[in-house]
Amino acid sequence: MKYAREILRNVEGYVPGEQPKLPNIIKLNTNENPYPPSPNVGDAMRGLSAEVLRKYPDPLALKLREAAALRYGFEGADWVVAGNGMDELLALAVRTFVDPGDVVLTVYPTYTLYETLARLHGVEITMVELGDAYELTEAFFATPARLCILPRPNAPSGGICSSRDEVERLCRTFDGLVVIDEAYVDFGDDNCMDLPRRFENAVVMRTFSKSFSLAGIRLGLAFARPEIIAEFLKTKDSYNVNAITQAAGLAALDDYAHMEANVAKVRATRSRLTQALRELGFEVTPSQANFVLARWGGPPSARGIFQFLRDRAIVVRYFDAPRLHDALRITIGTDQEIDQLLVALREILSR
Amino acid sequence: MKYAREILRNVEGYVPGEQPKLPNIIKLNTNENPYPPSPNVGDAMRGLSAEVLRKYPDPLALKLREAAALRYGFEGADWVVAGNGMDELLALAVRTFVDPGDVVLTVYPTYTLYETLARLHGVEITMVELGDAYELTEAFFATPARLCILPRPNAPSGGICSSRDEVERLCRTFDGLVVIDEAYVDFGDDNCMDLPRRFENAVVMRTFSKSFSLAGIRLGLAFARPEIIAEFLKTKDSYNVNAITQAAGLAALDDYAHMEANVAKVRATRSRLTQALRELGFEVTPSQANFVLARWGGPPSARGIFQFLRDRAIVVRYFDAPRLHDALRITIGTDQEIDQLLVALREILSR
Repeated sequence: MKYAREILRNVEGYVPGEQPKLPNIIKLNTNENPYPPSPNVGDAMRGLSAEVLRKYPDPLALKLREAAALRYGFEGADWVVAGNGMDELLALAVRTFVDPGDVVLTVYPTYTLYETLARLHGVEITMVELGDAYELTEAFFATPARLCILPRPNAPSGGICSSRDEVERLCRTFDGLVVIDEAYVDFGDDNCMDLPRRFENAVVMRTFSKSFSLAGIRLGLAFARPEIIAEFLKTKDSYNVNAITQAAGLAALDDYAHMEANVAKVRATRSRLTQALRELGFEVTPSQANFVLARWGGPPSARGIFQFLRDRAIVVRYFDAPRLHDALRITIGTDQEIDQLLVALREILSR
Repeated sequence: MKYAREILRNVEGYVPGEQPKLPNIIKLNTNENPYPPSPNVGDAMRGLSAEVLRKYPDPLALKLREAAALRYGFEGADWVVAGNGMDELLALAVRTFVDPGDVVLTVYPTYTLYETLARLHGVEITMVELGDAYELTEAFFATPARLCILPRPNAPSGGICSSRDEVERLCRTFDGLVVIDEAYVDFGDDNCMDLPRRFENAVVMRTFSKSFSLAGIRLGLAFARPEIIAEFLKTKDSYNVNAITQAAGLAALDDYAHMEANVAKVRATRSRLTQALRELGFEVTPSQANFVLARWGGPPSARGIFQFLRDRAIVVRYFDAPRLHDALRITIGTDQEIDQLLVALREILSR
């Protein structure tokens, strides 16, 4: 492609988990929430007039950012920026805070988008391997970089990856911006939302795709000191969050209890699935997210199990990548979906 | 801001036209369509289930791209990419096809976002001044660059800027990608939608914000050869267009006649406004867009007129920029809104 930039020649775009069109599919591959969002969200959307469609949205998404600041204990909207999904905020972080020649630091294995974003921006990414239990190692703290992205909980392990003490140590010692990807944190036991107030280099990111059951609307938030938020506001597209998504996000924040109730259900199913998988012989990392990573010694191979399930319209995620060849990542579905998954697993494993 | 990139230090973000909250405002400043979108759009949105909110949207927006390809005479979806507004597609064009050290070429005066996008990406922008009637000059053709952005019709003049012959000449002779910004083209007399098939470097961009009355949903399209579209698909955020916007866009394309009827009304009002402004003594560039640029010899100054109107909750656009100090950009509103504008203008000019 003679017109495209040289740096893109060997970059493949991020490959999202498939959205297969199978009848009666049990979709456990992209970490969506199995329960619907608050009915308030639908009501808010249906209540929007044609006027709202016709006119530009608030480029600063001020009402939404004010509500988010209030909900998460920040002084005002200038501590928050809204994005077209958290993916956009991650991309903006790389583009805003990393120069060509600089390095992005993250862990391995993790969300593969981080690597894609670095490559698209033409910068290096150092992925420091996690320990055997998918925990942070000293090598991570010893690696200099301009920006680090710490997923907490991490994907695809589902583990918390780092203790709060370790995150604080990172913010204190790392010479650069620390982005804490809390996409899955509502399913976990603690979070780092207090750190932006305590550390000038801490950025906490959240998404509405998981705990709020709103992957379809694309909404993410980043929390940081106003000086950092100001840079995001400078580099983001002016009207990056559309009017409908702004209204939907407001409605979702307003019915926080609905999200918490869904999370409680997912956590209960996660416990049950974890135990059942272990009884079947899988090794399951303790998960703080809405999915589990289940490793299988084989035979059959993990890929074989993946294909067997897929043939039965049960779609989980298999990664053809180092340290993951023996694993399946399984999204926590409804109890009924998980029961059907377990029936199918028992079938293949008893052959 | 010690963490942000050096190149951003002196860049101001794009400043969108204000969205003032005045009672009974007559809003003629951001080129929104005064008429509502097709009722099908609202119906399509209201018909979306909670399932659609809960799940990720189609990352490739395939149905929408197929419908757009069919509507605009392309062979298939691989000739089209959808964006979170045309702004995102313009930003992607710069980031995908321009390396640091390279130059973006455009005209002056024009949409100020082009300059902002180049600066945010850390590349040079050459803005070749338009002639006295806001037409393309030979200097434009003589300027080498990696990417050129040709707004057609142009803003804020509203003029067509370049003939079709000139655009073809540009595609033939320019050594780089030619992005033709057709945001306003539905209000004009011709377009360049046939050029991507005829020239490998031609990219035509469209928005749903103007003629389709859907600025609130954020949707833009770019049309080009599949090899070029593939690069956009690589660099865009995976889920850049949310599920609701995809459904809304499909519904809007499906009721194309509704858009055309709105456009006909806007064009009729544009003729009437142009004539009335000229009778008042304004110099008005023949407009092919949904706004007019009205220049005033003064006194009072154009800025004074702007302020006078604003005090009466009639908001037009004033640009504090070279060649525009004596001008107002007025969006074509409803006939009633334009009548009220004219009453106010007669009042201040008769003082």
